[in-house]
Amino acid sequence: MRATYHDDLDSISASLVEMTNLVGSAMSRATTALLDADLTLAEMVIAGDEHVDALYRGIEAKAFDLLARQQPVASDLRIIVTSLRMVADLERMGDNAVHVAKIARRRYPSSAVPATLRSTVLQMGHAAEEIVAKAGSVIAKRDLVMAAELEKDDDVMDDLHRQLFTAILDDSWADGVEPAIDITLAGRYYERFADHAVSVARRVVYLVTGERSHPL
Amino acid sequence: MRATYHDDLDSISASLVEMTNLVGSAMSRATTALLDADLTLAEMVIAGDEHVDALYRGIEAKAFDLLARQQPVASDLRIIVTSLRMVADLERMGDNAVHVAKIARRRYPSSAVPATLRSTVLQMGHAAEEIVAKAGSVIAKRDLVMAAELEKDDDVMDDLHRQLFTAILDDSWADGVEPAIDITLAGRYYERFADHAVSVARRVVYLVTGERSHPL
Repeated sequence: MRATYHDDLDSISASLVEMTNLVGSAMSRATTALLDADLTLAEMVIAGDEHVDALYRGIEAKAFDLLARQQPVASDLRIIVTSLRMVADLERMGDNAVHVAKIARRRYPSSAVPATLRSTVLQMGHAAEEIVAKAGSVIAKRDLVMAAELEKDDDVMDDLHRQLFTAILDDSWADGVEPAIDITLAGRYYERFADHAVSVARRVVYLVTGERSHPL
Repeated sequence: MRATYHDDLDSISASLVEMTNLVGSAMSRATTALLDADLTLAEMVIAGDEHVDALYRGIEAKAFDLLARQQPVASDLRIIVTSLRMVADLERMGDNAVHVAKIARRRYPSSAVPATLRSTVLQMGHAAEEIVAKAGSVIAKRDLVMAAELEKDDDVMDDLHRQLFTAILDDSWADGVEPAIDITLAGRYYERFADHAVSVARRVVYLVTGERSHPL
């Protein structure tokens, strides 16, 4: 019975890692769809969110089942409750990828990203992918070094986010209001995506060390 | 012992209701700060978020304590885990109010809201307040009628949100890029605030009926 119980705990952790892969891949495709005005790719991201949601519900059901049947205490209890919260972060990250894909779809066949901002958006996409990949490693290996790196990546994301606003608000901005709105929203989605990944990593750090390195 | 236990459960519920009051009041003040370019009010909202976060941590600590000491099963277990998720939604709602207040602060002494959009933003502020007030009642009284009303209020919020974009993207928009960005972001914060309140209400409905009325 206890063996099965720990198998169940491990399978929750494995599903969480799988979710990081899925939402990372979704954001990667969404970025390409946004930059290349690729409608097919955008639709794939939007439809693919169902898979993320299914994983969400599966993890949730398993966690509740463990709580109810095994009445875990102490660290196991904390792991399960933390998993329930991480899965909520990951589900939101999937939503953020979908939001980016929907901007691409809305502007198709144009690209929502002006030429002057392609490089910044591309870098935000890459930063998002790297952060979520690290979050996956943090979950899988409880790697605190990786968790610290991820915080730095998030600072990079915040810098890129600021660069977007600087560009939009500069006197030289010649693309008008509609692209400004698209870029403002896309920037927010990338930044939220990264924030949720940071939150996932911090929850693991808290599990391992019992210390909150940061406020909420 | 069991009496204390149920007192603890009740006190979690009371704290959740208190959080709905706090974040509702924060969003109300943030709206006024935004419309009137009231820096003092904006600073109050920003500083006041600490109180919301303190409640968050208090509820979290109590819920964990109950899980660990009482090993609740079935419906009590579900209530506690659901509370942990509602508190996360409420904390995010506080953040959204802070985000609105920060827009007000950033544009001070100007108002970030062009005259043509004052009425729409005011209505979004009112909708947000009404939705979170109803979410408080849903938590306190498990009132499913109120939960259904709140869904309709959220549709109103979504309509208002669309109106913002229509106005910004209209040829008659004469306020330029910076206000367009402010309004885009503010609109997003109101809409997220309402979504989290809807999510809180749906979690209560799920507790009461055992049925998910909506996808995530």
